Amino acid sequence: MELINECLQRIKPVDEKLVEKAQERLDQLTKPMGSLGRLELIARKMGALQHTITPQINKKAVVLMAGDHGVTNEGVSAYPSDVTYQMVLNFARGGAAINVLSRHVGADVYLVDMGVKGQFKDVPGLIDCKVAEGTASFAIGPAMTREQAVQSINHGINIARKCKEDGCSIIGLGEMGIGNTTPSSAITSIITNKPILDVTGKGTGITEESRRRKVEVISRSIDMNKPDRKDAVDILAKVGGFEIGGLAGVVIGAVAEGLPVVVDGFITTAAALLAVKMNSTIRDYLFCAHMSVEPGHQYALNYLGENPLLDMNMRLGEGTGAALAISLIEASCKIISEMATFGEANVSESF
Amino acid sequence: MELINECLQRIKPVDEKLVEKAQERLDQLTKPMGSLGRLELIARKMGALQHTITPQINKKAVVLMAGDHGVTNEGVSAYPSDVTYQMVLNFARGGAAINVLSRHVGADVYLVDMGVKGQFKDVPGLIDCKVAEGTASFAIGPAMTREQAVQSINHGINIARKCKEDGCSIIGLGEMGIGNTTPSSAITSIITNKPILDVTGKGTGITEESRRRKVEVISRSIDMNKPDRKDAVDILAKVGGFEIGGLAGVVIGAVAEGLPVVVDGFITTAAALLAVKMNSTIRDYLFCAHMSVEPGHQYALNYLGENPLLDMNMRLGEGTGAALAISLIEASCKIISEMATFGEANVSESF
Repeated sequence: MELINECLQRIKPVDEKLVEKAQERLDQLTKPMGSLGRLELIARKMGALQHTITPQINKKAVVLMAGDHGVTNEGVSAYPSDVTYQMVLNFARGGAAINVLSRHVGADVYLVDMGVKGQFKDVPGLIDCKVAEGTASFAIGPAMTREQAVQSINHGINIARKCKEDGCSIIGLGEMGIGNTTPSSAITSIITNKPILDVTGKGTGITEESRRRKVEVISRSIDMNKPDRKDAVDILAKVGGFEIGGLAGVVIGAVAEGLPVVVDGFITTAAALLAVKMNSTIRDYLFCAHMSVEPGHQYALNYLGENPLLDMNMRLGEGTGAALAISLIEASCKIISEMATFGEANVSESF
Repeated sequence: MELINECLQRIKPVDEKLVEKAQERLDQLTKPMGSLGRLELIARKMGALQHTITPQINKKAVVLMAGDHGVTNEGVSAYPSDVTYQMVLNFARGGAAINVLSRHVGADVYLVDMGVKGQFKDVPGLIDCKVAEGTASFAIGPAMTREQAVQSINHGINIARKCKEDGCSIIGLGEMGIGNTTPSSAITSIITNKPILDVTGKGTGITEESRRRKVEVISRSIDMNKPDRKDAVDILAKVGGFEIGGLAGVVIGAVAEGLPVVVDGFITTAAALLAVKMNSTIRDYLFCAHMSVEPGHQYALNYLGENPLLDMNMRLGEGTGAALAISLIEASCKIISEMATFGEANVSESF
């Protein structure tokens, strides 16, 4: 827990004074006051984060973490576990949706094996942080040991540091792991204190019957494993996943470095819930990319107090929503930094 | 009316078969079926428009048209008319929000003087299509003659043709004209058959008292000028504006060339209503960029049968929403054209 605690202690509140100063600048730009709506709110938030009224985005990262889940044995997913491994190869070759969208917005993909079943041989660009070949089924016992939970978070922290060293000024979160809406529903239910039934959806497309089985599996697992609601690491160990722990680590590591994090859909939001549980200041560094169709996502967003930037009816994951949202955040930074003021442009202000 | 009629007759229905074929391709891509939500719908629509399952966006245009409005004499705007002229200079120098956002998404701005008060001298990049130095106040008589209305539409058609010649594959609409929510509310009320009170908002930020005056001015103007509800050119002449006519022409000209058009906020949607009134097939070529905070916008969108892509609480105009939406449409084209299929990537399909 040493690295984790060190990061948690280094997290600083954002500079609220910069919110006001950024708004002052926004009000001097050649447009009616407030007329750029949410772009202005984003620009202010980025100003407060970066301690400047002219926030900039240089390099952009999407950290895409993959892991497998023992709980898929319980028939909670529409796809076989093998797909995680196959999709990692697809990511490495650049053929998946997140590759296309990251190229579109100019973000670099950091592809991380957090715990995929099977061994990869010389896959270019794949970062090896494998904790184990998939979690244990939490329908039978804990998903992982406490040591593994800590290890997965540590890996995420180190990836965030690498992004910072590489010159990234914003990190989007992405994930791939067949079955990972199941741990995400479990985590969301525990942290937001909402009924499992309300936070459990159809994932990549299971039937209503399978969804009921999924609810029952989660319910049983929580009763049996008894995660400590106050201890995020215990929740992760009992009902989490390696990629979820890794992403929680990315959030902690990024925020400790002062970087904003763009949460994608339901699974990455569950990871963010774990991080916020450890230090609530983290909330102020998060942007929520889009509204997932998973029913638990709304509860998780309410807990974070964030409105998603996009609502495109997407439910793919991989960081696809985060990539699109990064472009909107970059646009907002350019607005506040590049637009002319009324004075500079000789434009009359309102009556 | 010769040029207009020629264009209206050349407009072809989109290829509905391509919608199916595009969906077939989308379902073979390495993602759960339908999981990219609205990006998939956009990709299908672009496929049908471009008659291909791999639609492409090459050059992107934002056509930004400016004009002044005699009705500002009635105190319907928070800004003086001079601001239109001043903002055109700001656009030409690249300091406005639309310049920043167009650069961000890689679109070229076509800046057009449709009828700004005052004369411009050697403004680089400004396209001169000035019909007159502002419309007449439609609180007193028609905003313009029928000849001027036709002339403004013709100018728009020619700009769309220029965009096509320049290699543009999509056109976003933008506008600048102090007072132009007033004619837009009038047009929207007439075409959608909704009460003036319901479609009239606070524009760039007037008081509730001024809003009531605005409603009263529009009501009086329609009673006096008696626009023929069935004749879009007559509506434009009686209660429209030069930039609104120009933008209606851009829509007609673009669609005649088979190009999709991205409508921005309330004013450009009013222009699109005029175009659709002349040929309802045009609907299938439109994308609606964002939900404006102007109350009339929802009614106009309902009439077009379109859901906006973004909801960022924006009310600036200039094409700012259209620029952001163009990037989402381009992303959708890249998804269907660049992603790997299950077969290509050796990924298992769902159970």
